[in-house]
Parts: sequence; structure tokens; C-alpha cells
Amino acid sequence: MGRGVTLWFTGLSGSGKSTLAQHITPILKAHGCKVEMLDGDEVRQNLSRGLGFSKADRDTNIKRIGWVAKVLTRNGVVTVAAAISPYRGVRQWCREQIGDFVEIYVDCPLEVCEARDTKGLYARARAGEIKQFTGIDDPYEPPEDPEVVVHTAEESVEQSVQKILARLRELGYL
Amino acid sequence: MGRGVTLWFTGLSGSGKSTLAQHITPILKAHGCKVEMLDGDEVRQNLSRGLGFSKADRDTNIKRIGWVAKVLTRNGVVTVAAAISPYRGVRQWCREQIGDFVEIYVDCPLEVCEARDTKGLYARARAGEIKQFTGIDDPYEPPEDPEVVVHTAEESVEQSVQKILARLRELGYL
Repeated sequence: MGRGVTLWFTGLSGSGKSTLAQHITPILKAHGCKVEMLDGDEVRQNLSRGLGFSKADRDTNIKRIGWVAKVLTRNGVVTVAAAISPYRGVRQWCREQIGDFVEIYVDCPLEVCEARDTKGLYARARAGEIKQFTGIDDPYEPPEDPEVVVHTAEESVEQSVQKILARLRELGYL
Repeated sequence: MGRGVTLWFTGLSGSGKSTLAQHITPILKAHGCKVEMLDGDEVRQNLSRGLGFSKADRDTNIKRIGWVAKVLTRNGVVTVAAAISPYRGVRQWCREQIGDFVEIYVDCPLEVCEARDTKGLYARARAGEIKQFTGIDDPYEPPEDPEVVVHTAEESVEQSVQKILARLRELGYL
């Protein structure tokens, strides 16, 4: 396998983006793919320190992830991006830039994400300690035509991963 | 060839970094390498818009190039970075992060760079229109132990390129 592609996970905080990305990565490697995971938090640390959570800053951050994903993808790497990426416009920009782009909507009701509250962020957002938190006081724009939708409130991780792999096969990336 | 490495060109503005990078890229591709060029100006545009030319901002910009180079290099890409990168400390940081790192010092006297003035920047710096210009009113710290030194005031582009290729062979990257 030498064909690059970006798997773009989008969804609310706590929806399961990173979990799915972490589960699919070794499977793709076992298929002989070069795989690089771009995690939203890690990329913020390395490329976007100083940026905040306004729409403009979020878009800048996502464009940086998109640019790195483009460079990796055109060098044959399967790039797994996991970032909330709440805005449709900039996801579309990434799709156009990257070309080989598979958008995976990690659909999970806000109530479920909030009940999980993996990082304790929803509690802090509800308490007003964090502002501009996606789903609470900042918008999330669901994809209109993603290549894959997974429903993590109803499916197991394994089921969601299989769904994604099946779609990658269908699209000729596996 | 699947082995990644970063070729890190450092030197004054107008010393010939981009010219050498552009000449060596197709030769490396002809050797079967995947090659990605990270040009200082292009990276600033994509990853560091808003950063200036203070030491802190320059270091941040170079660390971002270094981070992208690391990710590419570990995926088997020959990454050709061409940025002034005037500070020794952050170049050392990149070396440690990346591991497979070949530092190429593009040595050229300031007078020659200034006489070339490819981008018209030296004239503007002398006129005081640009501040913090490396070599004029901002420092350049030459590498102490680079893998390659090329002297572009005396060598032809072809000679410098051959010198770099010979060193890459010696180091086992070609």
C-alpha cells in the first residue's frame, strides 16, 4: 500500500474520535500502511500555541492540521486526524486541499458526551469556567455528506471501526 | 529507498538555500525517494501567520517546521527544509527531535548575499523599512558542526549539490 488518504474524524468532545483513531491505527499498520495520527490537542500544542477558541482561531488551527495532513497524504501516509473541527466551511477547505479525504462523522448525542465527560471539560463548561465550549456555548455543524457516520452511543468501538474499514475498502483505500 | 531524513539548509537570506533545495529535490526523487520541500516562506504562510521576527517568534516558527519535518521523516520522507533558522539552539532542538538530521550550512558572505539581493530585502533593511533582518540588525549563529558546508560564493550550484549528495551517500541515506 502506498496510497495516502486522510481519515478526518469530526464530532463533539467526548464523542469518541480519539478512541476510534487509536483503535484503527494499528489495524491500518497491520495492513502495511504508513499511518500518522494528528490529534487535535497535540497539534494545538505543537502548531497553534497561543490560539484560542474563537471561530477565526479554530479555523486557523484546523487549516494547520489540514496543511500537515495534505503534505503527509501526498507522500503516501494514511493520516488520521481527530479534532472536533466544528465548522463545515473549514472542513470543506481541508477536503479540497487534501483530495484523498474521508470524512468520518462521529455522531453521539450531547447528553451522552456530557455524561461520559472523559476529560471533565463539560462540567467546567457548565460551571462557566470554560467559555466557547463546542455543544454548550459554541456551535457544532454536523457534516452534510460524510463518507462514514458512526453512532458511538449505540455501536461498540469494534463495530464503528469495522464500518470505517468497510468504507475504506469500498473507496479503494484498503 | 524508504529511509527518511531531514536535510536542513541554514544560512543568510540570499545565500542560496532555496536554490540548492530546488536543485537537489528532483535528483533525490530520481533516486526513488519521496521528497517534500518545506520552504521557510511557505511554512510561515501556512503554519505561522501572525508570528514576527523576534527571537521567540522565530524559534516558534522553526520548531513548527521541525515538528512537521519530524513527522514526515519518520514516515520515510526525505524532507528538505530551507529556512534562515539563525539560532543554534533551536536547530539543535530540531536535530534532537528529528534524529535523522543532516545540517547543511549554506555559507556565503553577507556582502555577496546583499549584492545578489534576490528579493530586494537587503535594500529595504538598509533603508530601515524592515527591522530585525538577519545579518543586518539581527544575529546569525553559524553551525558549529554541520554535516555539510557549501560555499555558494565560490562553488557552482552543481558543485554544492554534488557535495551534499556525496555526504548523503557517506551517511547511508542514499
